[in-house]
Amino acid sequence: MAIRVAVDALGGDRGPDEIVEGALAVASDDLQPVLFGPRGLDARGLSLVETEGAIAMDEPPVDAVRAKPESSLVRAVRSVADGETQAVVSAGSTGAMLAASLLHLRRLPGVLRPGIAVVLPARRGPSVLIDAGANADARPEHLLQFAHMGATFAEEILGVAEPEVRLLSIGEEAEKGSQLALEAHELLRASGLRFAGNTESRRLLEGDADVVVTDGFTGNVALKALEGTILTLLDSLRVEIGASVRGRVGGLLIRPAARRVRTHLDPESYGGAYLLGLRGLVVIAHGSSSRVAIGNAVRLAARGVEHRVVERLQEGLPALTAPQDDSTSNES
Amino acid sequence: MAIRVAVDALGGDRGPDEIVEGALAVASDDLQPVLFGPRGLDARGLSLVETEGAIAMDEPPVDAVRAKPESSLVRAVRSVADGETQAVVSAGSTGAMLAASLLHLRRLPGVLRPGIAVVLPARRGPSVLIDAGANADARPEHLLQFAHMGATFAEEILGVAEPEVRLLSIGEEAEKGSQLALEAHELLRASGLRFAGNTESRRLLEGDADVVVTDGFTGNVALKALEGTILTLLDSLRVEIGASVRGRVGGLLIRPAARRVRTHLDPESYGGAYLLGLRGLVVIAHGSSSRVAIGNAVRLAARGVEHRVVERLQEGLPALTAPQDDSTSNES
Repeated sequence: MAIRVAVDALGGDRGPDEIVEGALAVASDDLQPVLFGPRGLDARGLSLVETEGAIAMDEPPVDAVRAKPESSLVRAVRSVADGETQAVVSAGSTGAMLAASLLHLRRLPGVLRPGIAVVLPARRGPSVLIDAGANADARPEHLLQFAHMGATFAEEILGVAEPEVRLLSIGEEAEKGSQLALEAHELLRASGLRFAGNTESRRLLEGDADVVVTDGFTGNVALKALEGTILTLLDSLRVEIGASVRGRVGGLLIRPAARRVRTHLDPESYGGAYLLGLRGLVVIAHGSSSRVAIGNAVRLAARGVEHRVVERLQEGLPALTAPQDDSTSNES
Repeated sequence: MAIRVAVDALGGDRGPDEIVEGALAVASDDLQPVLFGPRGLDARGLSLVETEGAIAMDEPPVDAVRAKPESSLVRAVRSVADGETQAVVSAGSTGAMLAASLLHLRRLPGVLRPGIAVVLPARRGPSVLIDAGANADARPEHLLQFAHMGATFAEEILGVAEPEVRLLSIGEEAEKGSQLALEAHELLRASGLRFAGNTESRRLLEGDADVVVTDGFTGNVALKALEGTILTLLDSLRVEIGASVRGRVGGLLIRPAARRVRTHLDPESYGGAYLLGLRGLVVIAHGSSSRVAIGNAVRLAARGVEHRVVERLQEGLPALTAPQDDSTSNES
């Protein structure tokens, strides 16, 4: 039976047509994208669920999700909760996706906080960075859960047996780092996971572990530093190379090599990130996603369904008896 | 009168000879490096203060500094406190430099925490990142002081009038970020500085402000992500380009352009970072510093003396009445 993936047709920076094209490109007998968007949207033959309203990038997420239950983003998430679809993809506001998912899908039993898992295309091979931005503030026990979720993800989606886990910090020694990192280090050491200690952000793109754990603020800063540095460096090279005839000739000759590097190393080329820890499969795509990136995100979602990632996470999480209450989360 | 800069001859990954060569290369009638190292070190004609013992990178900083008052690192710092020299440079342990500086130089009146200021060679022009790693945990009022120190630094050393300050966070909107970032944002808005709001790490190397403020954990992660991404990306390009004859020919042609980009954008090429907020001028060099980097670091130190950075910081800091007690700093 075909896997049905809900696709929020709004929210991408490039407009709905780009998203429809991306979804259409990966539609097959086994994979049916279901579009969620306004009446009149040209769905190019794909199923369209008509929705009302959109959530903008800068709206306060929780308020927007509550105020607009019929918006494309919220309806797409609800379709997973209702069993109409098996996964959801949106290039809209990450905060709104998180809020809608918490409200309509809810957390898996025992999960304190969902975390965003991004696959970094490191040179040594793919590496899961978690949390890449769901939680701006986190506690050590959240990082422990991210590690467990990241390890399950690496096993199921990347096919790594007994994934190696490291903690992102500012030194390789156990005693280096913030209070959060020091306490998380102790929890990870006692976790039963294959924990190999700290890693530094300078090794992220080289690849130092199958799973790199951090809080959402640090993870987001690290991920965006990678993305920005790649773009700035390649653009600087382009400008310098274009400044002389000799350079321009050389630039033509190395173009295929440069393209391979860019395609391989740019985290954007992965298309999307999983929001893990929920009772349903959620993929968040970059706001600037091209049709190719959207297609990849839809495929990523389908792969998660095939590999039963949600069920595996539920089984893989140790029986956690910690309270589900998040009210104490705003430590300063 | 010549500026005298204390140079810790030990601590660099490449051994003392590299450091001596670096210091020698920038010695002049106006700039006298004074080496601190073991008896028998070949000082190549520079002044040598004989010291005993060295502090290793992985030693607990505070204990090591107290246990080894005659080590090259501690003696070099003490020489600034004693007025024998006017600034100190070390490529040794950052933690030990911080500990030795706090113990022997002490903080400027009103300064809660020293911060590491790194000049990022952004495309738009140099940009000061502070704190790049002195404080793994920080409070909003620390970030406010880093902003003031960074602004004074940008005025004095980079020659920027009324420098623009931004806060590193995970979204440009004021309401995005960790609790620390949200509270720091409010303080910065009311600070009287030219505060332009948040910036994201994807813009660090492009250049988005004269001063970018953050805590030492985030700043260190961002800086190392930049450095690592540049190295990995350039090395990947080198490998891909070398994989075909066409690429190799192109690679030869673009080599000068690639070298210009690397020299310009690599943060390591700056040689060192200032540790600001102390009653003396302290420059921390990368552990892996080459002789060129060491020479640049010594020059950076001399420039700080010429521009009276310490005195300017003292004048520029608003009359802060906050307590000097750091005992409550380990928030979780």
